Amino acid sequence: MHPLDETPIVQDGKSIILAHDHGLEHGPTAFADVPERLDPERIFEMATHDAVTGFAVQKGLAETYYPSYADDVNLIAKLNGTSSLWMGEPYSPQTCSVEYALELGADAVGYTVYPGTNREPEMFEEFRSVQETAREHDLPVAMWSYPRGQALKEQRKPDVIAYATRIALELGADIAKVKYPRSGDAMADAVDAAGDVNVVLSGGSKTDDRAFLSLVETAMNAGVCGLAVGRNVWQRDEPERVLDALEAVVFDGATADEVLDG
Amino acid sequence: MHPLDETPIVQDGKSIILAHDHGLEHGPTAFADVPERLDPERIFEMATHDAVTGFAVQKGLAETYYPSYADDVNLIAKLNGTSSLWMGEPYSPQTCSVEYALELGADAVGYTVYPGTNREPEMFEEFRSVQETAREHDLPVAMWSYPRGQALKEQRKPDVIAYATRIALELGADIAKVKYPRSGDAMADAVDAAGDVNVVLSGGSKTDDRAFLSLVETAMNAGVCGLAVGRNVWQRDEPERVLDALEAVVFDGATADEVLDG
Amino acid sequence: MHPLDETPIVQDGKSIILAHDHGLEHGPTAFADVPERLDPERIFEMATHDAVTGFAVQKGLAETYYPSYADDVNLIAKLNGTSSLWMGEPYSPQTCSVEYALELGADAVGYTVYPGTNREPEMFEEFRSVQETAREHDLPVAMWSYPRGQALKEQRKPDVIAYATRIALELGADIAKVKYPRSGDAMADAVDAAGDVNVVLSGGSKTDDRAFLSLVETAMNAGVCGLAVGRNVWQRDEPERVLDALEAVVFDGATADEVLDG
Amino acid sequence: MHPLDETPIVQDGKSIILAHDHGLEHGPTAFADVPERLDPERIFEMATHDAVTGFAVQKGLAETYYPSYADDVNLIAKLNGTSSLWMGEPYSPQTCSVEYALELGADAVGYTVYPGTNREPEMFEEFRSVQETAREHDLPVAMWSYPRGQALKEQRKPDVIAYATRIALELGADIAKVKYPRSGDAMADAVDAAGDVNVVLSGGSKTDDRAFLSLVETAMNAGVCGLAVGRNVWQRDEPERVLDALEAVVFDGATADEVLDG
Amino acid sequence: MHPLDETPIVQDGKSIILAHDHGLEHGPTAFADVPERLDPERIFEMATHDAVTGFAVQKGLAETYYPSYADDVNLIAKLNGTSSLWMGEPYSPQTCSVEYALELGADAVGYTVYPGTNREPEMFEEFRSVQETAREHDLPVAMWSYPRGQALKEQRKPDVIAYATRIALELGADIAKVKYPRSGDAMADAVDAAGDVNVVLSGGSKTDDRAFLSLVETAMNAGVCGLAVGRNVWQRDEPERVLDALEAVVFDGATADEVLDG
Repeated sequence: MHPLDETPIVQDGKSIILAHDHGLEHGPTAFADVPERLDPERIFEMATHDAVTGFAVQKGLAETYYPSYADDVNLIAKLNGTSSLWMGEPYSPQTCSVEYALELGADAVGYTVYPGTNREPEMFEEFRSVQETAREHDLPVAMWSYPRGQALKEQRKPDVIAYATRIALELGADIAKVKYPRSGDAMADAVDAAGDVNVVLSGGSKTDDRAFLSLVETAMNAGVCGLAVGRNVWQRDEPERVLDALEAVVFDGATADEVLDG
Repeated sequence: MHPLDETPIVQDGKSIILAHDHGLEHGPTAFADVPERLDPERIFEMATHDAVTGFAVQKGLAETYYPSYADDVNLIAKLNGTSSLWMGEPYSPQTCSVEYALELGADAVGYTVYPGTNREPEMFEEFRSVQETAREHDLPVAMWSYPRGQALKEQRKPDVIAYATRIALELGADIAKVKYPRSGDAMADAVDAAGDVNVVLSGGSKTDDRAFLSLVETAMNAGVCGLAVGRNVWQRDEPERVLDALEAVVFDGATADEVLDG
Repeated sequence: MHPLDETPIVQDGKSIILAHDHGLEHGPTAFADVPERLDPERIFEMATHDAVTGFAVQKGLAETYYPSYADDVNLIAKLNGTSSLWMGEPYSPQTCSVEYALELGADAVGYTVYPGTNREPEMFEEFRSVQETAREHDLPVAMWSYPRGQALKEQRKPDVIAYATRIALELGADIAKVKYPRSGDAMADAVDAAGDVNVVLSGGSKTDDRAFLSLVETAMNAGVCGLAVGRNVWQRDEPERVLDALEAVVFDGATADEVLDG
Repeated sequence: MHPLDETPIVQDGKSIILAHDHGLEHGPTAFADVPERLDPERIFEMATHDAVTGFAVQKGLAETYYPSYADDVNLIAKLNGTSSLWMGEPYSPQTCSVEYALELGADAVGYTVYPGTNREPEMFEEFRSVQETAREHDLPVAMWSYPRGQALKEQRKPDVIAYATRIALELGADIAKVKYPRSGDAMADAVDAAGDVNVVLSGGSKTDDRAFLSLVETAMNAGVCGLAVGRNVWQRDEPERVLDALEAVVFDGATADEVLDG
Repeated sequence: MHPLDETPIVQDGKSIILAHDHGLEHGPTAFADVPERLDPERIFEMATHDAVTGFAVQKGLAETYYPSYADDVNLIAKLNGTSSLWMGEPYSPQTCSVEYALELGADAVGYTVYPGTNREPEMFEEFRSVQETAREHDLPVAMWSYPRGQALKEQRKPDVIAYATRIALELGADIAKVKYPRSGDAMADAVDAAGDVNVVLSGGSKTDDRAFLSLVETAMNAGVCGLAVGRNVWQRDEPERVLDALEAVVFDGATADEVLDG
């Protein structure tokens, strides 16, 4: 049976993953305009929204807050991460083991890989170990597949994003989280390159409602299974409204215009 | 149950941690003015003071002297450390395993992490292993969270200290020991960023009574749970007097003025 | 008993290995002219051709698609690989364990080694571990033996290719996959240097039918046991026709001319 | 119970450790004037002298010669070492495991650490592992504590030697072997800094009888527990005479003058 | 009991080790003048000569050919090696585990160490692990002890070769294979420095019969236990004749002149 067949993080073949690892990856300044959202409880509350099929956080947030939300939230334990204080060659060390993710009640695990960087080989090897351990426990594996490095002039070039999804397939991920390659056609190519890996669009930094929802609409039309979103939800004044809108676009096939003007 | 719910190192939600790892971190010259305090027994005696909820030392001191003080002192085994003779990139190697800390009778473990340095990834990975092993034994974990490195112009910048406490939360620490970010407001922001991690103020180098106790008072008002103190206790002529004063400020909510002038 | 005596990837002492790791090693741009071949199912279909004695893919393709083809395809799990986005010193990190290859139903494993590069020692050590684990399970081991590095002016020099096959013998491989050393005599020398290791010719980039089949014919006459082929099959308009032709040359001893003109 | 309470290498609180690792650390040229002393049997014979409480050698000498001397000599297995042919950054790799030392019948283990060097962190971590394994087997641990490195202008500076003994205490050694810090007062400070770790003076290169014994007398008066001696014994014409003299100074409190002139 | 007491690779206290790792260490070009000797079977045949007490090869040759020769040849599994294509700092990675050597039926193991090179520490640590595992199985250990590195102006200097044999003793080898230090006296010094380790002369590159046998005669007179020989046997037209001659010199005490002129 396919690892995604019975997971609650995919519903009707679709996923909306709320990601909240910004406290580690970006630091509290990412919350400058919405300081109350530094409180993980607020974001856990958002994750109880029906549209959210998975909530991706680091171990520390999961062990503290997840016990209160285990019935209403599907946990994706993000297993590696780094701070933005660090200026080294792109690399993301492991911050949580698969075994501990299981103890935390995780429904899936997430792992960042930076193909093209000096430490690509190390990250491939670490991903191998994580992936194989997850397989032993039938735990789906999402790869945050973000090519970087000297040889890459542009991280969002169509070829690069298609390569990113293909690497996820070749290395045994079930879900590939990638950036938008600038056009729907390029997104469709990246979906093709992924074989039957589920591709989810990485939400990126906050944009206005129409721009954001149009992007999601285009990506869905290109064949992605959904998106992973953080700042475009929790940096907004009304996060529930945007989750309602995403639900309509991702699960009900609505257009951005229908949602915003309807 | 939360790892801090039943630990003796937190009492009424407050902690005063006496730290005595200066023999390793700074060397005997730190004791130049109080040479008799090089004798670990003297400091163990201080740690029996009622105000002290935990005593943080390296393994060597614990195995030699703790057996005589196990009834009167709560041990925090400091699990990594380095000498000041060493001129390398900031890094703190592990000097004691969690398992051995348990054999020594530790009530909690402490681990230094330097976010922002070249070896941040290694330290995050080592912290992971320590934290997960400690969890298996219900041992609380304190992170000495000290951002450093090329990119940091100032180690005590408010943003940096808030990032330091947040890293402790994200990586699964129970207690975050951080430096003072220069104002009570910034301290409060760092406490907010920590979620429900207990923040303790790092005492730092010796200052006069009023400056020191006012700092503690301000930090307590900003929401910290207490402090970790070393040189401001054992470098003083009358360490018991300052412990009495700290007890009043931390546990009884006294002001520095009340304690010094009252 | 010799590890190759009973393996289905060698038949009548001959092998045609279809390799399809280009999605990882070269990226989707390798499929620019035949975009539908990015779909692994198409290539798995090709691998069901009678002439194909083994199909070499990365773990991700095997776990997703092999279950449907297990009766008709013999799986060679390629256990290491890297992306062409990566600009580092030649090296190929392990992406799949031998144990997991067994779970996937592999009939053999493949491992790339780059003798002559800065990381030759690491790759020899990793090959050792893979080889010994494979031996425990009677799994044949194919070495992709590709000398590179500063000291090598030409990777296809006769001496270099003979050294490549010898290294496969000395380190305990059962099959050595090497590039063509520019002449049949040199190929024969490389076969001699291999002892009783099975040498297979690496197909390389796509050439026209006659050039390709003549090369295979020459190599067979020089004593190789067959070839490993990828782009010369799946980049062609009619992959089955070239597989038919290869079958005739490799298994039936036909000449290129007979096959093409007959 | 303290690890030193029952060990034969400390007698009446005193130790004379004969060290014979010069074959590895200095090479055969150290024996140029006494070539017959290259024969380990000669030195094992010396180690049977009543004054010698422990004999420190590398594994190879222990496994070959110790079986014949097990009744008359207490073995200190030196667990790391390097050759003087090696020009790298000061570091001493492990040459014997604690477990194998036990099989050899060791009564204690010795480990060199170079605080202040680039590889201090590695050596602290390796010492941790050695120390904790030794504790499991109640085997006393002696640290050869030799600060070095770029930041150290003088290896024998009083502050440096006091730091050296303190590091031994903090990291959990039972015995600290250090160089002489140029005065009895500085030696006494180093003894103070060591807490209840036994400090032994490192004998150093060969000097004349009076200089050597006076140094030992001064160190004993400063509170050291004895000395570790190599070249000042086995490079002498009459090693037994100097061992007799050391016995008088270390165990019987004789002065150098009494011994030499008496 | 001494590891060499019952091993067949030492007979009457003497050893002639035929080494055939040149396929890996030097590559097929070493066989340019005798191409048929690339066939390992030819060399295995030579190893059946009565004079040969041990045959040293890499794992790949042993697993393929040794089963047919197990009754007539004593196997020394060479456990590390590197190619001459590699231009890095001298280092020899492990290519076979001790455990696998045992499965291959090895009577002893061989390991190369390069004292004085940048990676001396790593090689000492790896030798430790090999040596201790071999001890568990009573398998004799031969060290190919070859000092190299920046500090060594001449690899064959008498002091250097004596240091080489001493390192073998100190680290726990049973046999030390070293180069000839240019005179019989220096060879004798190296034998003295080795304690009771068996010293064998490394045969080196091919020379004429008289030069070669005279060298062996001189070395035997200096106290070595025999030699390890490769090219001086298998690069000759009549390898059996030179083996007959070596038998006479090593086992029967004949002089080179007696053998050649007699």
